[in-house]
Amino acid sequence: MDQSNTIENLAVRLQRFAADRDWEQFHNPKNLAISVSIEAGELLELFQWLTPDQAAVYADLPSQRERLAEEMADILIYLVRLTDVVGIELLDAALRKVALNESRYPVEKVKGSAVKRDPN
Amino acid sequence: MDQSNTIENLAVRLQRFAADRDWEQFHNPKNLAISVSIEAGELLELFQWLTPDQAAVYADLPSQRERLAEEMADILIYLVRLTDVVGIELLDAALRKVALNESRYPVEKVKGSAVKRDPN
Amino acid sequence: MDQSNTIENLAVRLQRFAADRDWEQFHNPKNLAISVSIEAGELLELFQWLTPDQAAVYADLPSQRERLAEEMADILIYLVRLTDVVGIELLDAALRKVALNESRYPVEKVKGSAVKRDPN
Amino acid sequence: MDQSNTIENLAVRLQRFAADRDWEQFHNPKNLAISVSIEAGELLELFQWLTPDQAAVYADLPSQRERLAEEMADILIYLVRLTDVVGIELLDAALRKVALNESRYPVEKVKGSAVKRDPN
Repeated sequence: MDQSNTIENLAVRLQRFAADRDWEQFHNPKNLAISVSIEAGELLELFQWLTPDQAAVYADLPSQRERLAEEMADILIYLVRLTDVVGIELLDAALRKVALNESRYPVEKVKGSAVKRDPN
Repeated sequence: MDQSNTIENLAVRLQRFAADRDWEQFHNPKNLAISVSIEAGELLELFQWLTPDQAAVYADLPSQRERLAEEMADILIYLVRLTDVVGIELLDAALRKVALNESRYPVEKVKGSAVKRDPN
Repeated sequence: MDQSNTIENLAVRLQRFAADRDWEQFHNPKNLAISVSIEAGELLELFQWLTPDQAAVYADLPSQRERLAEEMADILIYLVRLTDVVGIELLDAALRKVALNESRYPVEKVKGSAVKRDPN
Repeated sequence: MDQSNTIENLAVRLQRFAADRDWEQFHNPKNLAISVSIEAGELLELFQWLTPDQAAVYADLPSQRERLAEEMADILIYLVRLTDVVGIELLDAALRKVALNESRYPVEKVKGSAVKRDPN
């Protein structure tokens, strides 16, 4: 793995991007949470009218993958920017949440059945 | 940095979580994009009625930080699961997008002014 | 039709609801748009892991219909409150948009095929 | 009020729009809920980087009002289409929900204070 290719480095690069443009003023937690949500809608739009099977095929089309990658990237960018602004370690939080989900949803109880309430 | 604390390792852990529970059947790209969007709404709800200043204060409250961390974690979890299912490198995509934004929004042109259209 | 059962009357009732509680201060256009989006996520959550067919069955279950109705109601409530606050006639706007869609998507051109870009 | 300008008539017009184009196949409850959510994101995008005050000013600009009206219309269109497909009376549901909120949030208890959890 390229050592520079980490969430921490992405956070630093986004800090500089915002600072250079004097955009820190717009990057308060509320606006960044809004931005994550807007970008999530744009990702979802790619699959809007597709059946689940068609969506899986679509996600494999070479012609569509860069668009798809870009929409996912936008979400990560704002999410990492938000975690940096509020000073929360995103990967640590995710690992704590996965551990919580593992204990909340024991294999023997939930195997194969969709839970009514999603784990998150 | 803890070597185990990477997006790649999170992806592997989520693979196992889903496989153990026979939940891969639910994790098609469309459902995972939906899930990212739902979780983004839950994050946004934390700030719903707060002014931007109040939201910044809220994000600093020790009593609220775990809740905030958890909502951000949920977004990352589904986003990483989605990128893993479709086989896209999330951090690479984010770095490509940042580079694109850097060239799209030259400092001398946009400094200090909100762009009408957000960069992403 | 019950004459009181109109969007206009709903708007008036929501005005009074907010005024009585001194909540108008929170009902600026940005917060109301956020609220519409949060509620849309809650609606979507009802269908999160269901196949399209299962979602249709779910929507017919007597036990689920009030929950479903309530989530749709929440969206309408914030949307009507927003249109009232900004002074836009929601139904007029919708009818103009439908007319626009009718001319943008002529039957003979689009029949049976999903448009890449959704009409709205 | 123009008698034709009702949610019921909008629903009928949307039925015909979909039937004429053979698009009913795409209009299952899950896809329509997704569409409401996507459109809510597009509305929110109009206010993304604005302060609450700027958002209120923006919503009053003659040059922006048609764009704003269109985004709100898109949400209503998919919401009404969804309620029609699942056979739920949207205005009735909204009025029931308002009545519920009125009893849940008695004036004397909540006046002037934002509730932690939004009413909906």
